[in-house]
Amino acid sequence: MIIVKVGGSEGIDYDSVCDDVATLVAEGQRLILVHGGSSLTNEVATALGHPPQFITSPSGYTSRFTDRRTLEIFEMVYCGQMNKSIVEKLQARGVNAVGLSGIDGGIWRGKRKDAVRSIDENGKKRIIRGNYTGTVDEVNTDLLNLLLDAGYLPVLTPPAISHDNEAINVDGDRASRATAVAFGAEALIILSNIPGLMADFPDEGSLIKEIPKDKIDEYKQHAEGRMRIKLLGAQEALNQGVSRVVLGDARRQNPVRDALAGMGTVIS
Amino acid sequence: MIIVKVGGSEGIDYDSVCDDVATLVAEGQRLILVHGGSSLTNEVATALGHPPQFITSPSGYTSRFTDRRTLEIFEMVYCGQMNKSIVEKLQARGVNAVGLSGIDGGIWRGKRKDAVRSIDENGKKRIIRGNYTGTVDEVNTDLLNLLLDAGYLPVLTPPAISHDNEAINVDGDRASRATAVAFGAEALIILSNIPGLMADFPDEGSLIKEIPKDKIDEYKQHAEGRMRIKLLGAQEALNQGVSRVVLGDARRQNPVRDALAGMGTVIS
Repeated sequence: MIIVKVGGSEGIDYDSVCDDVATLVAEGQRLILVHGGSSLTNEVATALGHPPQFITSPSGYTSRFTDRRTLEIFEMVYCGQMNKSIVEKLQARGVNAVGLSGIDGGIWRGKRKDAVRSIDENGKKRIIRGNYTGTVDEVNTDLLNLLLDAGYLPVLTPPAISHDNEAINVDGDRASRATAVAFGAEALIILSNIPGLMADFPDEGSLIKEIPKDKIDEYKQHAEGRMRIKLLGAQEALNQGVSRVVLGDARRQNPVRDALAGMGTVIS
Repeated sequence: MIIVKVGGSEGIDYDSVCDDVATLVAEGQRLILVHGGSSLTNEVATALGHPPQFITSPSGYTSRFTDRRTLEIFEMVYCGQMNKSIVEKLQARGVNAVGLSGIDGGIWRGKRKDAVRSIDENGKKRIIRGNYTGTVDEVNTDLLNLLLDAGYLPVLTPPAISHDNEAINVDGDRASRATAVAFGAEALIILSNIPGLMADFPDEGSLIKEIPKDKIDEYKQHAEGRMRIKLLGAQEALNQGVSRVVLGDARRQNPVRDALAGMGTVIS
């Protein structure tokens, strides 16, 4: 089993991703596709008069604040336009794709984080409630296996659903990781609009091609921001039974097959 | 098996629909829920600067023109916000709902009608291409039975997918009918924001409570517009093996159970 996650940033070539997925599925590869949609969500939210809101935590980490209206817009773009467009592309390539969110059949369940801590520009700290985000801690592999065994390809997208049955926005990389761990996947391929981990971001010539599992801690010291998070995530996945994590580039042809062949950053 | 279709017009009480569906599922009733979302789609399309376009056919029938952008907005609302909101409500009521469009797994396949004929206010006729609508002629009952047998409740919504693998907008009532026929359903319940067929529309006191199958032709003469279409649809469903069609009211409590108990217009 391999889990392929393709991000939602600008520049991603979904046609090429679907070409590759179709080739792999035709070869008999058991596969689940996960996708994002953040860039388009920001556009739609702004057009609908509810632009993205960001908060800074006291430790300095900036993240999106997801109120209920933001969650609805998120569902429109991720589960509506993006998910159905990808399913349509796969159907056109002969893949009997089935698009699902983490809410459907409780595919991704987790804990909601209703209250988040923030700090404003004057250093004033406060607690903001009404947040609809969380993290996945349960994956319904039964439903996914049911579909895979019957010849369908699951195409998954956030949101997930909380243990109290509320839709919650979850990080797509983390949800993909939880899915890869639940299946003990042989590979977790995370594709975005950069070539992989770079020693000197954003210099693409500084791509780090390989990170052995026992050297991750050394690399972590040099990584910052999302890079560091991806590295921590890869380490967690490997520690929990995933054989290989590849961070690859989705702005080009053959993005999935190239990542499987070792292009990008291979962590194993 | 019963197929419950709930429309997308203003005034519909989705919480009550979900309450009833949960009760019926708990009692062991095999059921598929289908929903619309037209009212919210018009709102969102207007907010996004792409308001609904309507065309009048030479025979005087007005319908929505669905270009590709309209289809995307349609997917956002139907497959995104509406579908996931209903699945979330059902999950909260203990029903393991799975939300799918007709594109997913090719659940609803049909013929696309690319070109539509229109007539303008000066009586000038023309052919407009680039239309993404069609009609369902194949239902993937295998996938639906797979989910039902495993304890999941399918929650279906347009669009469907064409035989050439393009997403196509389809009439929700007709897609529900195709589904009911494919299953030889014992009942097709069509809920909207009116009490049923009215002899003297919009006088709700003129509700027609029962139409025997062999009297449909008589009633058809008095019916107009959407009413006539619903009646033709009911006739077609009965002729193709559905035991009973009920047109019921979704603005109230117990909308599904009341329709099953004979409230509304029962055609059988």
